[in-house]
Amino acid sequence: MSRISLPEFTAILDRELPITRLLGIRTEAIEHGRGRLRMAFNPDLVRPGGTVAGPAMMALADVAMYAVVLSLLGPVELAVTTNLSINFLRKPAPGDVIAEAHALKGGRRLIVVEVELYSGTSDPDGERLLVAHTVGTYSAPPLPESAAVEKAIEAGSWDKVS
Amino acid sequence: MSRISLPEFTAILDRELPITRLLGIRTEAIEHGRGRLRMAFNPDLVRPGGTVAGPAMMALADVAMYAVVLSLLGPVELAVTTNLSINFLRKPAPGDVIAEAHALKGGRRLIVVEVELYSGTSDPDGERLLVAHTVGTYSAPPLPESAAVEKAIEAGSWDKVS
Amino acid sequence: MSRISLPEFTAILDRELPITRLLGIRTEAIEHGRGRLRMAFNPDLVRPGGTVAGPAMMALADVAMYAVVLSLLGPVELAVTTNLSINFLRKPAPGDVIAEAHALKGGRRLIVVEVELYSGTSDPDGERLLVAHTVGTYSAPPLPESAAVEKAIEAGSWDKVS
Amino acid sequence: MSRISLPEFTAILDRELPITRLLGIRTEAIEHGRGRLRMAFNPDLVRPGGTVAGPAMMALADVAMYAVVLSLLGPVELAVTTNLSINFLRKPAPGDVIAEAHALKGGRRLIVVEVELYSGTSDPDGERLLVAHTVGTYSAPPLPESAAVEKAIEAGSWDKVS
Repeated sequence: MSRISLPEFTAILDRELPITRLLGIRTEAIEHGRGRLRMAFNPDLVRPGGTVAGPAMMALADVAMYAVVLSLLGPVELAVTTNLSINFLRKPAPGDVIAEAHALKGGRRLIVVEVELYSGTSDPDGERLLVAHTVGTYSAPPLPESAAVEKAIEAGSWDKVS
Repeated sequence: MSRISLPEFTAILDRELPITRLLGIRTEAIEHGRGRLRMAFNPDLVRPGGTVAGPAMMALADVAMYAVVLSLLGPVELAVTTNLSINFLRKPAPGDVIAEAHALKGGRRLIVVEVELYSGTSDPDGERLLVAHTVGTYSAPPLPESAAVEKAIEAGSWDKVS
Repeated sequence: MSRISLPEFTAILDRELPITRLLGIRTEAIEHGRGRLRMAFNPDLVRPGGTVAGPAMMALADVAMYAVVLSLLGPVELAVTTNLSINFLRKPAPGDVIAEAHALKGGRRLIVVEVELYSGTSDPDGERLLVAHTVGTYSAPPLPESAAVEKAIEAGSWDKVS
Repeated sequence: MSRISLPEFTAILDRELPITRLLGIRTEAIEHGRGRLRMAFNPDLVRPGGTVAGPAMMALADVAMYAVVLSLLGPVELAVTTNLSINFLRKPAPGDVIAEAHALKGGRRLIVVEVELYSGTSDPDGERLLVAHTVGTYSAPPLPESAAVEKAIEAGSWDKVS
């Protein structure tokens, strides 16, 4: 079961990540290790050629990763992306873009997430079109207790602390 | 010498990439194979922890790559990112972010660009802080003539064309 | 249908990529846009902790990408990797490693391939364990005709050629 | 100052990473946050086109990252690559390949390293040729004490332990 509900995650985005509002990113589903998000098309997101700009798609993928991470860890807002790699495969039609994300690895420290970005507009055969593919890693904040231990050790004062 | 001037590149961004205006991205310098861009801080770009959101930094890096690509190719707006990989290294202060980009490889078909993102705010020792590192590949549109050749060959009509 | 048969691909590896013999990489299946390869365990491939060394897994992934590329293009041996990104997810047991690869995008110029690496040893529940995940891009050599066109244009002699 | 000496690092490779011997990888210099390694050319490393095979270059880059990591952490052999991204830029001549690696970020948990691979053979102007570029992340093993804390917390027994 997801450790965060859809309304809770949406509330975090609204409150803490205003760029999602700017880009029209909305979470559609969240479950343990999975999430689906949608970025509504708007003319501010186009790029030459009349297609959706790459930075908007990267933003959508990153937020989808964040949904998966919080579904595993709960509302630890300070989890951060450590890296992200994206391949652009096809030009999306100038329409909505949908992100389907799932965890490849869920760990206490590092979580690896795969995100597939689809064009919201089906192709002539009614099939969804994969437009970009992302893999990224999030790093969970250290638990307060182990962070204290690590600091004490680095400071050479572990013996005194324990 | 750059094949595009700073005003020409700025005009393309203004006209064709409205997301750059949304994010406050401004080009400061462009020369052959190099570019420097700045993203002005604004409260819409923050993320939990009071720092600059990852998607904003990725957008800045992508636009910096585009500057380098057009400095090499001239104003071929249809050059597209094929992939981008970013490592987030340190939390930027809530301030401007600066991108320094240069070509690792300039080719007729593929151009590989490295982008270093610095916090616009120096650290206590007056040193710039590297906050993220990106490498990406742009694909140049095929020359019209060779595209025609490729299409003819794929269609099996090369013999008739040539 | 694959544009290269399993024996043809195996023959290319044997003749042209001796590192595959060094590492014990064997192709098990190849079809249009897909391939499955296996790296036999041997003590030369271990790393500290008694597990399979990362470089051996990267090599397996790269060769699996090559299988997919030649399944699409036929035996154009000069197709080259332009980039590869790998995430290591879990330590494989000291045993065989299996690569399952498929094309995310097949194009005339760029082919993007996803490779999943599994431990050949099932876990206690009989499930396969995903140990690493790779996405990479291969660049097809330009068609001789369009390469000639590009060269002529670069040399400024297109008018004379055409 | 490096936390590991050149002979110490070489001894670890010899004892624990036999693939380095297989590929002819030798460490030339190691200092705090930096390393230089060389892979001697041998015919087993070629690929179609008579150049050095990609997997051999990836292996060299990965071992160079490991040198940088141990220069920062000391001989904690269990540090592992979590991801690696490589861009191949130019075909190396069939000769030695040299890796120059340095840390972009050195942390207690994650270390990010950039590696430049040069052809050991200069070009006609006597300049070194950059043939590939890599960025990767190593994860340091958790300190034994904080690992115990994390386990206890996960097991719900932290109160009893502390």
